[in-house]
Amino acid sequence: MRYPTGITKTYQSLKQYGNRGMGLESEINQSNEFYLLHNIAVIHKKPTPITIVNVDYKSRIEATIKEAYFKIPSTTDYNGIYRGKYLDFEAKETRQKSSFPLSNIHAHQMKHLFQIIEHGGIGFLIIRFCHYGETYLLEGTKLQTLLGETNRKSIPYSYIKQYGKLLKDGFQPRIDYLKIVDELYFKGDEI
Amino acid sequence: MRYPTGITKTYQSLKQYGNRGMGLESEINQSNEFYLLHNIAVIHKKPTPITIVNVDYKSRIEATIKEAYFKIPSTTDYNGIYRGKYLDFEAKETRQKSSFPLSNIHAHQMKHLFQIIEHGGIGFLIIRFCHYGETYLLEGTKLQTLLGETNRKSIPYSYIKQYGKLLKDGFQPRIDYLKIVDELYFKGDEI
Repeated sequence: MRYPTGITKTYQSLKQYGNRGMGLESEINQSNEFYLLHNIAVIHKKPTPITIVNVDYKSRIEATIKEAYFKIPSTTDYNGIYRGKYLDFEAKETRQKSSFPLSNIHAHQMKHLFQIIEHGGIGFLIIRFCHYGETYLLEGTKLQTLLGETNRKSIPYSYIKQYGKLLKDGFQPRIDYLKIVDELYFKGDEI
Repeated sequence: MRYPTGITKTYQSLKQYGNRGMGLESEINQSNEFYLLHNIAVIHKKPTPITIVNVDYKSRIEATIKEAYFKIPSTTDYNGIYRGKYLDFEAKETRQKSSFPLSNIHAHQMKHLFQIIEHGGIGFLIIRFCHYGETYLLEGTKLQTLLGETNRKSIPYSYIKQYGKLLKDGFQPRIDYLKIVDELYFKGDEI
């Protein structure tokens, strides 16, 4: 897998900066476990898409994948159901300071996010600026507006700061992003 | 991976019975592509969950997974959005004649399906009886009723025939299961 400049996958971050935190992906997974355990929402991370080429079937019980390749994902990483609504998002970290490079999100994933919104689902990005230690939720519709205007290759930090919602760190859940989803998508609804 | 008696994963069927058809999984994937292309629904198969142990990074562009293992899935294989609703299902084939063995669906997957229903989503099974060349959609709620009554290890063919809905083979889409979803979940609604 190729990582564009300034972008790290969480497990790379963990390897390289083990003491800086548990990484966005792990924190979201933990939050989703919390939501599931407390029957708040059913949201899962999709497995990494791969093409399996060679499998060694040692026995009927055990099989070892001996050769496989990473595939470009055709959807976002996370989806599920919350308050009866379909919810879909992608989560990424960047070490950049002034913008979030869009090269980090595949064209297919972006298209998918917009399709979800078109079909009445909730779609957004969770973006962490590692340098500032800030994590934002940016609605897909806000992203559509920005991308519709210009042929951008990145989302400026200032745009995300202005139009995104800051997600606070917590203990349980680690990132209570559904609180912001409530604010943005269920305003006025009873909880 | 261990396959309980009478159960085959689609790619096994393809290998063993190449001329009998393209296999349930491929037919559903093709149907989902049709739905996506015609902007009817956004439904995808989740990638096979695996644990990656060893990756060979030959270059910055290419990476080969050298050792990985299949994981027990914690959710069903398919989910997405249709007519604004969250939709979730598992699809399996059996060569059994009198019943569908539940050993084919992991406990986690079943639990997941019931959680989805609890949260207001649409959840069902698609079951193919290869012997009869028949494919059924069985609502998750029907399954809950059956499993609530008894400590069953299988779903009788007769039960599926009575309470499930037969899915007709077509050309495009191959299996128009959303037509049945319309009947079952959107009756009386405008399309």
